[in-house]
Amino acid sequence: MERPLAVVLLSGGMDSCVTVAVAAADHRLALLHSSYGQLTEARERQAFQAIADHFQACFRLAIEQHYLSRIGGSALTDPSIQVPQADLGAAHAGLIPATYVPFRNAHFLSVAVSWAEVLGAGRVFIGAVEQDSSGYPDCRPEYYRAFNEVARLGTRPQTSIEICAPLIGISKADIIRRGVELGAPLHLTWSCYRSSDAACGTCDSCALRLRAFAQAGVPDPIPYRANLR
Amino acid sequence: MERPLAVVLLSGGMDSCVTVAVAAADHRLALLHSSYGQLTEARERQAFQAIADHFQACFRLAIEQHYLSRIGGSALTDPSIQVPQADLGAAHAGLIPATYVPFRNAHFLSVAVSWAEVLGAGRVFIGAVEQDSSGYPDCRPEYYRAFNEVARLGTRPQTSIEICAPLIGISKADIIRRGVELGAPLHLTWSCYRSSDAACGTCDSCALRLRAFAQAGVPDPIPYRANLR
Repeated sequence: MERPLAVVLLSGGMDSCVTVAVAAADHRLALLHSSYGQLTEARERQAFQAIADHFQACFRLAIEQHYLSRIGGSALTDPSIQVPQADLGAAHAGLIPATYVPFRNAHFLSVAVSWAEVLGAGRVFIGAVEQDSSGYPDCRPEYYRAFNEVARLGTRPQTSIEICAPLIGISKADIIRRGVELGAPLHLTWSCYRSSDAACGTCDSCALRLRAFAQAGVPDPIPYRANLR
Repeated sequence: MERPLAVVLLSGGMDSCVTVAVAAADHRLALLHSSYGQLTEARERQAFQAIADHFQACFRLAIEQHYLSRIGGSALTDPSIQVPQADLGAAHAGLIPATYVPFRNAHFLSVAVSWAEVLGAGRVFIGAVEQDSSGYPDCRPEYYRAFNEVARLGTRPQTSIEICAPLIGISKADIIRRGVELGAPLHLTWSCYRSSDAACGTCDSCALRLRAFAQAGVPDPIPYRANLR
């Protein structure tokens, strides 16, 4: 019998790459990427395509949601707001960093649910991480439980789509260990918020990634600016 | 004291136009429109701009979500699926018509909530109608209650945004009566799913509109194809 189809949100970063590897264990893959005016969007899309090639995805869809950069309100989409240096203590203090894109994940999940309904996929995977993350409000389990309810009520009665966030309670170091076990192509991923050639190493996303690789005792296979290595 | 700001989703149809009039009674207006590859998108956007001019909106934002037509699955966005002739009995039988765009309203609400968070608006208005409508799953009160929960959980802790659907329990005829009372510019609206010069009069949207104007005893001010009058 053919394996069931899952839609997986794949930014091109390490969390979403490992999420694809988790989903691939027992699903055929429909991989979804969004360019929304983030500073490194071309580099992320390149990572998406390379990872989709690696997993030989059945379907792939790369879309544009550039209206998010017109709405602004985030250092990721508004060039006049600087991407801050990492402050890994801020999340614990309940502060929302300047890289938060207002209500962003709802836009991604909406596309994933629409596509899943049209393809007949029963699951949507997202690589959201709560613990050990930047503290964005749309990365918490209760948010995904609420979105599941919206997906149940907002689609055809015969449609059944479950939102799955398999990494949400796992530390970044364990995500890397899990990725290595599953053979996830971490060398194809891109996480840096700022640059597209060599990762800056000093934004929140780089800092979380570098700390996690160090904790996992695994070398990070992507290039960083020389003065960091 | 300055009146509070509300984001209002304005397709350009009669329901959303009356919703703007309702919101305008005690809010400053931020009006939002989406082109998503629907057949009549240029005509709808023209209606949006004319209605926004009429209400002298403080902010207006017309965005593109054309990825919805790439996802397809609807007669509104896929030219290979014909817009069916109206069948006003189908909704009562629990059938979802071919014009249903999978999970569409979640895309619109996501934009509205993001924009409201950036603008500091406390309310998002949408002209969804349950009773006397086409029977789309994302036009029911429980769907909006669930989306309110997603908006509460997925935005900054200090953000408070309420989704309001003031027409959801009202008949289309009463929506017209309400619009007339409030001086809503119904002559500027466009509802037809099929055509952009004179309304076809025979798609679901036209049929619901024509029946409602007849029931309200008010002449419909927009042009229809000659053979209908």
